Amino acid sequence: MATDTTTPNATTIDVPRGLKGVIVADTTIGDVRGQEGFYHYRQYSAVELAEQRTLEDVWFLLFEGHLPDTAERKRFAAEVAPLSTIPAEVFAALPAIARAGGGPLDGFRTALSLFAANRGMRPVIDLSPEQRRLDALALCAVTPTLLTALHRLEQGHEPVAPEPTLGYAANYLRMLTGEVPEARLSRAIEQYLVSTVDHGFNASTFTARVIASTGADVGAAVVGAIGALSGPLHGGAPSRALDLLDEIGTADRVDEVIADHIAAGEVIMGFGHPVYRGDDPRSLMLRDVARQLGGDQVELAQVVEARVIELLDQLKPERKLRTNVEFYAGVVMEACGVPREMFTPTFASSRVIGWTANILEQAADNKIIRPSARYVGPPPPQPIPPA
Amino acid sequence: MATDTTTPNATTIDVPRGLKGVIVADTTIGDVRGQEGFYHYRQYSAVELAEQRTLEDVWFLLFEGHLPDTAERKRFAAEVAPLSTIPAEVFAALPAIARAGGGPLDGFRTALSLFAANRGMRPVIDLSPEQRRLDALALCAVTPTLLTALHRLEQGHEPVAPEPTLGYAANYLRMLTGEVPEARLSRAIEQYLVSTVDHGFNASTFTARVIASTGADVGAAVVGAIGALSGPLHGGAPSRALDLLDEIGTADRVDEVIADHIAAGEVIMGFGHPVYRGDDPRSLMLRDVARQLGGDQVELAQVVEARVIELLDQLKPERKLRTNVEFYAGVVMEACGVPREMFTPTFASSRVIGWTANILEQAADNKIIRPSARYVGPPPPQPIPPA
Repeated sequence: MATDTTTPNATTIDVPRGLKGVIVADTTIGDVRGQEGFYHYRQYSAVELAEQRTLEDVWFLLFEGHLPDTAERKRFAAEVAPLSTIPAEVFAALPAIARAGGGPLDGFRTALSLFAANRGMRPVIDLSPEQRRLDALALCAVTPTLLTALHRLEQGHEPVAPEPTLGYAANYLRMLTGEVPEARLSRAIEQYLVSTVDHGFNASTFTARVIASTGADVGAAVVGAIGALSGPLHGGAPSRALDLLDEIGTADRVDEVIADHIAAGEVIMGFGHPVYRGDDPRSLMLRDVARQLGGDQVELAQVVEARVIELLDQLKPERKLRTNVEFYAGVVMEACGVPREMFTPTFASSRVIGWTANILEQAADNKIIRPSARYVGPPPPQPIPPA
Repeated sequence: MATDTTTPNATTIDVPRGLKGVIVADTTIGDVRGQEGFYHYRQYSAVELAEQRTLEDVWFLLFEGHLPDTAERKRFAAEVAPLSTIPAEVFAALPAIARAGGGPLDGFRTALSLFAANRGMRPVIDLSPEQRRLDALALCAVTPTLLTALHRLEQGHEPVAPEPTLGYAANYLRMLTGEVPEARLSRAIEQYLVSTVDHGFNASTFTARVIASTGADVGAAVVGAIGALSGPLHGGAPSRALDLLDEIGTADRVDEVIADHIAAGEVIMGFGHPVYRGDDPRSLMLRDVARQLGGDQVELAQVVEARVIELLDQLKPERKLRTNVEFYAGVVMEACGVPREMFTPTFASSRVIGWTANILEQAADNKIIRPSARYVGPPPPQPIPPA
């Protein structure tokens, strides 16, 4: 914590900027193997989980460390169901939060902060593991209800109460649109949600762990993570990739539009990833999901993908730029009826499960995360001039 | 970001747990020299600033890098004055936030999140330095108004509108209590507030910089910092030290009560600091402030301080445990009429200036802060069992 420019402090350690590569935690939650195009939750491939399991099963896996058996699945559903309802005092404040503006992610940050306070969440270091788990479970369970309620209020509609018997994904789409979705749509969005529960040690997950490391309550840590996710350098923006498809419009215009962007030195939205060299496993999975949904936009997306990769390979062959999670995530969400302003909040809806799993892991074996800074200003103390 | 247990990644770096001593930023905002019992804002002793300058001057110093001259002081006051009023849409939501519970720090977190959204704060990476500065200024200016309004609503009173001509500290006490304070009280609280504007690289300041490093808006970063401050391992709790004085009650009971706590293996609240070996410069300054205020509690505090130090020196001579900032902070705040539940929020009120100065510094020369984790679970991929 203290650095000292006058008497150099032997304990300070220089590392790459942004703490790149610096190991800050041991985890059993999951990891990303960028070179292999592979990521996992616990010991399972995240893509295989998305293909074979429900969101609830994966949520259980992240919280409990193993996949549920039939009895565990039933108990978990019964435990989560009542937690999906927004408490009356929080619900009463939602219209004012929606009216204050800022969009659904900011509204979610405010509403979740209010929810945590209303629940009387106590510092994680003062709680038993089971009490912490209940706070985390409550936050994850109420998140889809809060997000969709805020969105509907912003649109001038009444919120739709949760119907837990539907399952997480179908319930999410129903609370968003007011209609019970077709099974193929709720399964598609569920596969997306499973694929975004966690993804290695990203900036919002790190933020959640830093706040939890001070002993603060689970809600405080998640509220901070939402803030980090809202940063353009972290949170993806699946809607930007769709904006590109809109701009292209028809397959014959791909070259023209992309050439313009490349000539302007712009990044092509939906392509390239800081970790994956080559294919992003989430993109491959979501392309399959999109193909099964079908439709004109899905057709266009595949033409655009193929042609953009050709162009990028000519331009930057060494980069091997491929579609990232944003590209088909936007296509899938749009096909499922999720409005564009809800793309990032929908991502946040399942990511809160990853954040809270990390918070619980941090709390279980905690040390406050508090690096140092180096003072590089004029040497103190200088005399203070008269006011 | 990606670590890989199968093919060891040459770029991962092992450091002490909690990133202790790891340099994450260069700063010109200030520093702590624990061995010397000295801390500074820019190139000036923080204690001398508290003795000689107003909160507004120090706020200007942190934002602009130099102390204001007369014209700058006047311009700054004129710029800040209108920003201290809570916007109508945020004000309308405060009763619901107060009713939802959780206490004033949680309420502040929620209200500030709402304020940032209502202001339409945009990502720092999309803003000019001047636009970022205005967002930061607005947050700092509205903070005392928000904190005191929430407290009054929780107590069943109407909020008191700011009266900027009074100056920050007098205005704060007036909004809190409804009465224009005596000058000696507002000056005492001002000295406390100046002394807590910043204090090296602590966990909430780090949190603010991590969130800002994603490019998120200033509000998102401050909201996260409030969460970190609420962690018992970070935020002090000046009220705990007062609780000890209450428990002791009269000077003749010091030995008995302290001996009980020591025998029970408990930490004596208000004594010892992780950085300062020996005197905490904030404590020395606040003891002087308390002496000038006078009163029975101040007398008792000095007797307790002297005797506890004697006892601790006998017990742990190598530690040189001395009163920390909590001890006399509580005494000073209580003497100024600040209710105990508002001690930590009052601390947050001036610390937001330090947080935002750090956010602006981070944004001015940014790289995303994103360390790594090491996966230590069972090797993936394992086959997924049938559901």
